[in-house]
Amino acid sequence: MANRTITGAKGFRAAAVACGIKTSGKPDVALLVSDVPATAAAVFTTNKVVGAPIIVGRKHIQSGVLRACVINAGCANVCTGDRGVRNAMEMCALAAAGIGADPDEVLPSSTGVIGHFLPMEKVRMGISHATMALSNSAEAGTAFANGILTTDLVAKTAFATVKVGGKTVTIAGCCKGSGMIAPNMALPQATMLAYVATDAAIDKRALRKVIAEVTGQTFNCVTVDQHTSTSDTFVVLANGMAENKKIVGGSDLKKFAAALYEVCDSLSQQIARDGEGATKLITVTVTGAATAADAKKAAEAIANSPLCKTAVHGGDPNWGRFVSAAGYSGAKMNPDKGLCKVGDVLVFKNGQPTKVELAAVGEVMQGKEVSILVDLGVMAGKAGYSHRVYTCDLSREYIAINADYHT
Amino acid sequence: MANRTITGAKGFRAAAVACGIKTSGKPDVALLVSDVPATAAAVFTTNKVVGAPIIVGRKHIQSGVLRACVINAGCANVCTGDRGVRNAMEMCALAAAGIGADPDEVLPSSTGVIGHFLPMEKVRMGISHATMALSNSAEAGTAFANGILTTDLVAKTAFATVKVGGKTVTIAGCCKGSGMIAPNMALPQATMLAYVATDAAIDKRALRKVIAEVTGQTFNCVTVDQHTSTSDTFVVLANGMAENKKIVGGSDLKKFAAALYEVCDSLSQQIARDGEGATKLITVTVTGAATAADAKKAAEAIANSPLCKTAVHGGDPNWGRFVSAAGYSGAKMNPDKGLCKVGDVLVFKNGQPTKVELAAVGEVMQGKEVSILVDLGVMAGKAGYSHRVYTCDLSREYIAINADYHT
Repeated sequence: MANRTITGAKGFRAAAVACGIKTSGKPDVALLVSDVPATAAAVFTTNKVVGAPIIVGRKHIQSGVLRACVINAGCANVCTGDRGVRNAMEMCALAAAGIGADPDEVLPSSTGVIGHFLPMEKVRMGISHATMALSNSAEAGTAFANGILTTDLVAKTAFATVKVGGKTVTIAGCCKGSGMIAPNMALPQATMLAYVATDAAIDKRALRKVIAEVTGQTFNCVTVDQHTSTSDTFVVLANGMAENKKIVGGSDLKKFAAALYEVCDSLSQQIARDGEGATKLITVTVTGAATAADAKKAAEAIANSPLCKTAVHGGDPNWGRFVSAAGYSGAKMNPDKGLCKVGDVLVFKNGQPTKVELAAVGEVMQGKEVSILVDLGVMAGKAGYSHRVYTCDLSREYIAINADYHT
Repeated sequence: MANRTITGAKGFRAAAVACGIKTSGKPDVALLVSDVPATAAAVFTTNKVVGAPIIVGRKHIQSGVLRACVINAGCANVCTGDRGVRNAMEMCALAAAGIGADPDEVLPSSTGVIGHFLPMEKVRMGISHATMALSNSAEAGTAFANGILTTDLVAKTAFATVKVGGKTVTIAGCCKGSGMIAPNMALPQATMLAYVATDAAIDKRALRKVIAEVTGQTFNCVTVDQHTSTSDTFVVLANGMAENKKIVGGSDLKKFAAALYEVCDSLSQQIARDGEGATKLITVTVTGAATAADAKKAAEAIANSPLCKTAVHGGDPNWGRFVSAAGYSGAKMNPDKGLCKVGDVLVFKNGQPTKVELAAVGEVMQGKEVSILVDLGVMAGKAGYSHRVYTCDLSREYIAINADYHT
């Protein structure tokens, strides 16, 4: 069977080991390595409080070339001052030494509790073991996808191939993220961590352009709890081993971007589905907005409202919560011309409830996937801006996970 | 014993009756009446989707004179088009007829489910019975405070007296609000409903100025679930029956404003304490901000983050959540110069965790009242702007109330 994990892209090896940062004894140090220097681009959280790995990562990505990503789970190395930065740099140095690279060719990430120093003895042993365990097998790819998890229940992977520049290139990704999820990442700037390995040859600037666009349409459109992490990182490593004619623009770039979008869209949806305590995937779409920013504001207000999320959780056809959330979002809105649909059921139009039976709406809301559409009624048809956000319902389990979480 | 209910201000009568809108059979129509025309000012929700009573109320308040407020609970009369507006106007007309006033001297409010038409036969009977039950007794004041409730567990009242213009005037208020609480009210613009009756004589413009200021510092600084309602209304009726020299400005206005602030601050805190599912009152203070808007953004981000609210619920000293919420709020922040305190315990300073034992923080967080302070580190000392928000923790009970709520 074909390897559809992150090591399914040519020239990539991975590993994950347990070094005891997680009290559960599960794998907590992971390593992704390209056999040759890879063209790389990354986006980081826009939170004003950032983890030490973000500070180091922003520097290391500047060259546009990376050999590896080193990750630990269980401790986020955030709010840890100079010592934290030194620790993140040491993680890079250790990984680099193990694979024969420069420390600044390594991008570090940490996820877990904020405000604690990394247990460096454990981390050192973990990285050392990980470098020895590197493999291009599907098992190693799967281990990597699991090694970066925290409160996630399932590993999240996606895979695409696309023919560009005369060759079929592979785009293989994985990510983690379940709580503290409302990524808002920008160039050189979730705790969402996402890694894409591709064997495509692509120009550095083209890759930066694509990663920014795709992030805006995918990871930045997921919210579990609206809490943008200090550590969100999405990085693409493109090592050129597919030997395609280098992608610099035109139709090849479009095709590559579309395939990368497909991978990231899938990962985004997987994050929402596995949101802490989630029992349902909610897709919120806002249309008819005056601006793209308005569409985003309204969709996020609905997706982040605990009243909307609990209504979906309970399968309660309380659509007034959706409409009123759009109303307070700050987006321009004309309720008399707008509408609201739950699934395919029109519940609100012309400023009034439709004659639909609420029981029919309740039935749609009992499903495992619930889509909510609110049209703001400001711009009709294709002239109106739209935005889509993936989120999940809010359950008692979310409270249990987060009230009982130990620091 | 002195009457400290809303009928404790001279010349006010109140009533509440059950007419069957609430399936529980509890009182659901309430009426507050001034014996003489009262100078009045009101602020309403800034939600773009507003209830029919808001549309009618904005018109009726324009004259600055009211005789009465008529309220129903159990159905919000929102998203109900022209029919909804006609129903709200009929509520005013019925109340006016019952007390010998003009319909435009009555301010209507409705709270409850969105997207349903008012059951007018029940409402008509309710208003008719309420007009007959009007009384200036403390019992009637208490009935009024209870008749406006929805998911609230307790009635919320506050009372102050202040000497102005040679007389002691009384300011008596009550309010409701437990869910869909993040008031953002502006002049003629939760579901928070708050009513203040005062026998002070005060100039119309002065009253408008004071209500705007006090709302910004009190009701607009409460959030239970960040979901700004379509129906939030706060109205002050000042009927002059204390016979003080009319307040127009100067120290009398300051004294009146301070007393009104005291009443509204108490009511605000009561709302947060009685937030749906709440077990704790949380006071979030942000200091050291570059602007007032930044301080507000950061405080609201902390107060609205489900991760922060569940940490407090669990009594978990996970202060990284507070700092990181300020970080994504959009406010300017310098974490290396900022700090974080939980209660009186300093947990984060100079970009690093302090040496305090987390157990000491956990102890503070086990309390029924938890205060969180984050200094953004941008402006030192008194030059920095600050903001305070009241909120509550997020519990399994909140999920139960809102996932199982029936529309």
